[in-house]
Amino acid sequence: MTEKLKIAVIGGDERQSGLCKLLADDGHKVFAFALERAHLSENIIQETDITRLNQKFDCAVLPIPVYADPTHLNAPLSLHEYNPDDLFAYFPSGQMIIAGKVNNSLFEKAGRNGLRLYDYLEREDFNVLNSVATAEGAIHTAMCELNYTLNGKRCLVIGYGHIGKLLCRYLYGLGVDVTASARKSGDLAWINAYGYNAVETSKIFSDLSSYDIIFNTVPKLILDEKALLSVKQDAFICDLASKPGGVDFNFAKQLGIKTIHALSLPGKYSPSSAADAMRKTIYNILDEWRN
Amino acid sequence: MTEKLKIAVIGGDERQSGLCKLLADDGHKVFAFALERAHLSENIIQETDITRLNQKFDCAVLPIPVYADPTHLNAPLSLHEYNPDDLFAYFPSGQMIIAGKVNNSLFEKAGRNGLRLYDYLEREDFNVLNSVATAEGAIHTAMCELNYTLNGKRCLVIGYGHIGKLLCRYLYGLGVDVTASARKSGDLAWINAYGYNAVETSKIFSDLSSYDIIFNTVPKLILDEKALLSVKQDAFICDLASKPGGVDFNFAKQLGIKTIHALSLPGKYSPSSAADAMRKTIYNILDEWRN
Amino acid sequence: MTEKLKIAVIGGDERQSGLCKLLADDGHKVFAFALERAHLSENIIQETDITRLNQKFDCAVLPIPVYADPTHLNAPLSLHEYNPDDLFAYFPSGQMIIAGKVNNSLFEKAGRNGLRLYDYLEREDFNVLNSVATAEGAIHTAMCELNYTLNGKRCLVIGYGHIGKLLCRYLYGLGVDVTASARKSGDLAWINAYGYNAVETSKIFSDLSSYDIIFNTVPKLILDEKALLSVKQDAFICDLASKPGGVDFNFAKQLGIKTIHALSLPGKYSPSSAADAMRKTIYNILDEWRN
Amino acid sequence: MTEKLKIAVIGGDERQSGLCKLLADDGHKVFAFALERAHLSENIIQETDITRLNQKFDCAVLPIPVYADPTHLNAPLSLHEYNPDDLFAYFPSGQMIIAGKVNNSLFEKAGRNGLRLYDYLEREDFNVLNSVATAEGAIHTAMCELNYTLNGKRCLVIGYGHIGKLLCRYLYGLGVDVTASARKSGDLAWINAYGYNAVETSKIFSDLSSYDIIFNTVPKLILDEKALLSVKQDAFICDLASKPGGVDFNFAKQLGIKTIHALSLPGKYSPSSAADAMRKTIYNILDEWRN
Repeated sequence: MTEKLKIAVIGGDERQSGLCKLLADDGHKVFAFALERAHLSENIIQETDITRLNQKFDCAVLPIPVYADPTHLNAPLSLHEYNPDDLFAYFPSGQMIIAGKVNNSLFEKAGRNGLRLYDYLEREDFNVLNSVATAEGAIHTAMCELNYTLNGKRCLVIGYGHIGKLLCRYLYGLGVDVTASARKSGDLAWINAYGYNAVETSKIFSDLSSYDIIFNTVPKLILDEKALLSVKQDAFICDLASKPGGVDFNFAKQLGIKTIHALSLPGKYSPSSAADAMRKTIYNILDEWRN
Repeated sequence: MTEKLKIAVIGGDERQSGLCKLLADDGHKVFAFALERAHLSENIIQETDITRLNQKFDCAVLPIPVYADPTHLNAPLSLHEYNPDDLFAYFPSGQMIIAGKVNNSLFEKAGRNGLRLYDYLEREDFNVLNSVATAEGAIHTAMCELNYTLNGKRCLVIGYGHIGKLLCRYLYGLGVDVTASARKSGDLAWINAYGYNAVETSKIFSDLSSYDIIFNTVPKLILDEKALLSVKQDAFICDLASKPGGVDFNFAKQLGIKTIHALSLPGKYSPSSAADAMRKTIYNILDEWRN
Repeated sequence: MTEKLKIAVIGGDERQSGLCKLLADDGHKVFAFALERAHLSENIIQETDITRLNQKFDCAVLPIPVYADPTHLNAPLSLHEYNPDDLFAYFPSGQMIIAGKVNNSLFEKAGRNGLRLYDYLEREDFNVLNSVATAEGAIHTAMCELNYTLNGKRCLVIGYGHIGKLLCRYLYGLGVDVTASARKSGDLAWINAYGYNAVETSKIFSDLSSYDIIFNTVPKLILDEKALLSVKQDAFICDLASKPGGVDFNFAKQLGIKTIHALSLPGKYSPSSAADAMRKTIYNILDEWRN
Repeated sequence: MTEKLKIAVIGGDERQSGLCKLLADDGHKVFAFALERAHLSENIIQETDITRLNQKFDCAVLPIPVYADPTHLNAPLSLHEYNPDDLFAYFPSGQMIIAGKVNNSLFEKAGRNGLRLYDYLEREDFNVLNSVATAEGAIHTAMCELNYTLNGKRCLVIGYGHIGKLLCRYLYGLGVDVTASARKSGDLAWINAYGYNAVETSKIFSDLSSYDIIFNTVPKLILDEKALLSVKQDAFICDLASKPGGVDFNFAKQLGIKTIHALSLPGKYSPSSAADAMRKTIYNILDEWRN
């Protein structure tokens, strides 16, 4: 991205203000809206008048998620409250907009107003970058919780989606004995091809007692009461699946098994990389649109 | 696959006769059709009467590809010639059949006769197993052609599909300096996440002279005259893309650049694994169908 | 170690009391001396009379380091104070003893009394296990300090001894771009053979500005004022070398470069593995002595 | 090595003539002695008068091994025969000389004449470069002999010296299930730290039947009759140990177990890297001597 652009960054938390800095460091002209309480460097233009969104920007960047609740923009660093739907009325026709967790109604509004709206979460590049941060964050979480080294331990990763793939890769790289589970025969073939042990998810239960560490990435109750009874008492379970997760946490507690439900790791573990993932995705979208 | 099955293996080359052995070793009752000239062990039943396909088998296994030409079964080890369409007339209704490179007309025939027909090539598990063999075979090919070690060399893998992914993984594992190219931003993010260097395919040309070894996996003319002029004269190019491949072989020859168009590696490099890939895929299909 | 032994564990901190538990879990008969304030399980015999060391044990285990100061046993969990030299008077002739950081005078005493005394720190097995914990602990330290992912970052490891070797291996496994420095041409060859970038330690200075993260393992002032002036201001330096370390910490602070002097990582990062390393080394010594 | 040097290359086979080319390509002035039948490019000076060795060269390079037999220089590409001892009479005092497999008498001669003589084989850098080529060559050998992929196979590497270390590393990188054996507890700790399975060499026999591929690197009869009886009949054994090797080849043949005694792999598998290893070692020696 050598060309210098004019970019509006609107609302969001520290990641979004970090994004302002990254974009400005790359030489772009950055206008910050609904970020009045963020500490921004001088080369970033703090906009106080929201109607100024009616200028044509090369890109307008809304937060992830764009909504704090059904009617409000996610803008914890702002002094004001906005409804994303209202903001869309200011954008000039053809404006390119990026946001996270866009709902149907907002896409509809964009369509009606002739705006080009993209959702980060529908982008493979963004999802991969996020998964890198989640996988590393999961390893960091385990390192913090455990009083022994990961090297040489037996570890099960349940689910071989984006996060599962990278978690296996990085654990293997630390000299961990990695087993990954998946339901599909194609995923099991990939697991073996990469050199890990493979087990069908429906068959993990017969061997659960052999693992020192279990990471779950599947948003479905996998480690239920029956399964937990097979887990070693001094094992550690790290659940990465979105709420309610895949572990019966109460029963695990009764059994004295240490568990953690680690959510939103990218923002917590590596906020700077999270901002960088937004930056890269914005550039990729702009590149693709031009070619 | 602990249950003992009754399986018909029909036509094909050494891989298919190897499959007979693997299935029989697993304890299944194997009937070989159109394999009269294959050397089969005694526990495999050589069938000479093709109409005996009218029995109900747990699975009927046709070769990859099923057709040798538009009207003939691929059956180089048979004493007779068959048309796959005709064979389908013998199968009882509901027969499960597996074959490779099935065309529309054969699928239609299967549909009309109430047969359950699967194509290996539409199966992710089979494709991954095949890609493992192709990636390893590509490394073997390079090792045979080159008079230096791969370790420490700079290597470009063009295309990050199944084969590209595994080739990168294995080269990296040999201590090669791996760069992978892809067109999509999502693939580029994956490449980085796995620790390789990433470059957009359209931008490989500026840096082509830095590679000692180039593997192409994209079935499109990528290394054309202009590109080849940037390649080091003592570089080695291994094209894995199906015919006509992605390299201007004539021009490369004129320039004195060593090239190889390595096709059908799984069958050539590791016929035993190729037979095993068929076996595993058959079991997976049977398993999925039962569950 | 299937045979059941009689082992005395004498003094030391939580690692030593952890060792008592591990040994008892393996079925050995464990006698704890100078560990009165440790919380030990019931199957461990708390000895209050130090003269009871005059029994013949299969092994007597002293702490690492054995001395708290020139005249006192390292025994923070004891109610009493002892001089290691005095303890040696109780041991019967031929007693096998293991301790850490044994000085010449203690070795001399052992020799004179006919005791077989081993120092953990002179054992390759113990040093490797310790280095695993140090390398993982160093990665954990970086993960805690940094607000971005390690994956994809450029990292320099100064020194290719035990810790350097494993740190490179694990960073590489996380998809980090790893450069290792060493002085000897043989080490540089090893570094390349394992797939990392190699640079002679005396030549790191020309390229210091390209690293995001620098780990030092060499106990010599390497990153002095001049060198630090080439380091990126937002780089992170993690010094693993024993005091005074290899970094001019004050000058780094003036430059605003984030540094950490991470010492005694095994005990802090993974005390349970530290106890396990002691256990494994004891078994190895006993095994070797019998064969 | 930016400085341009004057180098004499004396005797040897294709590797030594390859070395002439590499040195000349680097810009050095190369004089070839006892290489009359080698096809050398024009920028290399073919010397026919051996007494011209009396000039002062920056380095005089003799072959590996230096002796063809107890009285003759290893010089298959020469038209004449020489005794290395005689050659030493020509060198001026202080001449730096590099050769392979130097015996005591030659070292003595060098000492008496004031020559600085180095043996490649006593250099760690050269040994590592050689081991890279041996380890890759061993994998190449297995790939050539086997009709299945290495990925996913169970493999035992006997001995964890230079070659064992790199063979484990590269096999692991190909997704092989790697077990390494060693005698010393320190090596076993290293094996685990790198993520491979470890087994004491004296205990490999109980589990030999579980391996698909066995590489031996220990120059001692390990796989004797008794051991071979435990090896799978369709396993492959690749012996890398110098003659007579570590396998009872006759008995293996009787059992129908496929074996290969793969010797001198660097020269056979990657002659160009073998020449490059000589070049790098020469530069390293020159560098060290100046500093």
